[in-house]
Amino acid sequence: MRVLLTNDDGIFSKGIEALYLALQEQHEVMVVAPETEQSAVGHAITMMDPLRVKEVNRNGAFFGYALSGTPADCVKLAITELMNPGPDIVVSGINMGANVGVNVIYSGTVSAATEGTVLGVPSLAVSIESFTTTDFAAATDFILVLLGLVQKHGLPPGVLLNVNVPAVPRDAVRGVRVTRQGDARFLDHYDRRVDPRDHIYYWLCGSTASPDEAPDTDAGALAANFISVTPIHYDLTHYAMLDVLKKWLA
Amino acid sequence: MRVLLTNDDGIFSKGIEALYLALQEQHEVMVVAPETEQSAVGHAITMMDPLRVKEVNRNGAFFGYALSGTPADCVKLAITELMNPGPDIVVSGINMGANVGVNVIYSGTVSAATEGTVLGVPSLAVSIESFTTTDFAAATDFILVLLGLVQKHGLPPGVLLNVNVPAVPRDAVRGVRVTRQGDARFLDHYDRRVDPRDHIYYWLCGSTASPDEAPDTDAGALAANFISVTPIHYDLTHYAMLDVLKKWLA
Repeated sequence: MRVLLTNDDGIFSKGIEALYLALQEQHEVMVVAPETEQSAVGHAITMMDPLRVKEVNRNGAFFGYALSGTPADCVKLAITELMNPGPDIVVSGINMGANVGVNVIYSGTVSAATEGTVLGVPSLAVSIESFTTTDFAAATDFILVLLGLVQKHGLPPGVLLNVNVPAVPRDAVRGVRVTRQGDARFLDHYDRRVDPRDHIYYWLCGSTASPDEAPDTDAGALAANFISVTPIHYDLTHYAMLDVLKKWLA
Repeated sequence: MRVLLTNDDGIFSKGIEALYLALQEQHEVMVVAPETEQSAVGHAITMMDPLRVKEVNRNGAFFGYALSGTPADCVKLAITELMNPGPDIVVSGINMGANVGVNVIYSGTVSAATEGTVLGVPSLAVSIESFTTTDFAAATDFILVLLGLVQKHGLPPGVLLNVNVPAVPRDAVRGVRVTRQGDARFLDHYDRRVDPRDHIYYWLCGSTASPDEAPDTDAGALAANFISVTPIHYDLTHYAMLDVLKKWLA
């Protein structure tokens, strides 16, 4: 398959390199990724500023294109301008740090895959539950399997897959669970500080809330050392509420 | 009610001022809004940089706080730090330009209301289908009515309301429709240009696709001069796909 590979940690991250090396043995891969880390950008797109594209080499060989924008920009520009013909699939990752629960709405990794889906290309987001691991074997093995499944079955229009992999050696992964988006979230607070000129500023801090998540959720699967696969979409309508609101407004 | 008012067009926009003037006759309003326009930032939050807060005056009187961040940052900081006790409701708008269909995923206006909902506060997003109008009467009238309904009934946890108002005089509005998120979207392309130093750059262009949207969609209601109210949520799980994936992976 022709794979468009992107991420939100930036083109120089270990996660995208590991996935590139695994994918390029079986597929034709083009990398278009942000030049700099773009964590927590959500589904931002750049409209007010121009986008610049730079070729990036690794070990003396062409690796991909670095973009002065967000993950969603990378996918939009790659599909509409840089790749011709377009990709058969968009893969975003491997992100350092899980993208589960409510935090999915802040995720640049997921937004890149969402943008692919909006533009009609089957798309996957892949994250690993560690900020420091260098062992991506469990993740890359599974993504190769999943690519085969997507190639065989296709994905329905508007649906993408959000994959999260526990940060354990390949042999310690207990299997794959199909999950729903759980309720995991950060517990935010702000550090209130004073700058050298006596002005107040705030800095976001926070720790991951680790509620006991149900086994059928993304975070619940990870906690039990399963890979989680969550099918998501971007129709945000809360259908059950339609009739309630009609009564309010009658 | 104690209202937290924010937007994504920035604290100096006409839309937020019109809504402020209407709300403050009946409610206690605090404005915390981005210092600069933040369109298409999606659900970005600022983690790598500090946030600064400035007091803004209008007509010699205190108007609100301008934040060096995104709409979601405004809501997070206001609820966790600046308002004590916290707000009874978050209102985001009035945005210049409709937020309907697929474009909702790029919307800073909607993301501010989503952030309020994540933090447990009932929240509304309000947009008007014009980039230039100065007539906000239909929108402000309806938002006052809707605030009363939310005060009376409450909103279920995790559900917010995305309101879009046609840009017509109050008397030309034909009513209110409860709608689902439709399929309206931008048709993107990029302008490929050469800078004064012979480097290539790209700039996002695009026009709104105006498919014939069904009457029960957000864009369909607007096109018929109805106000649309779409209940949305941030559980992105595509539930129908869970069983399909389980079969793939069996």
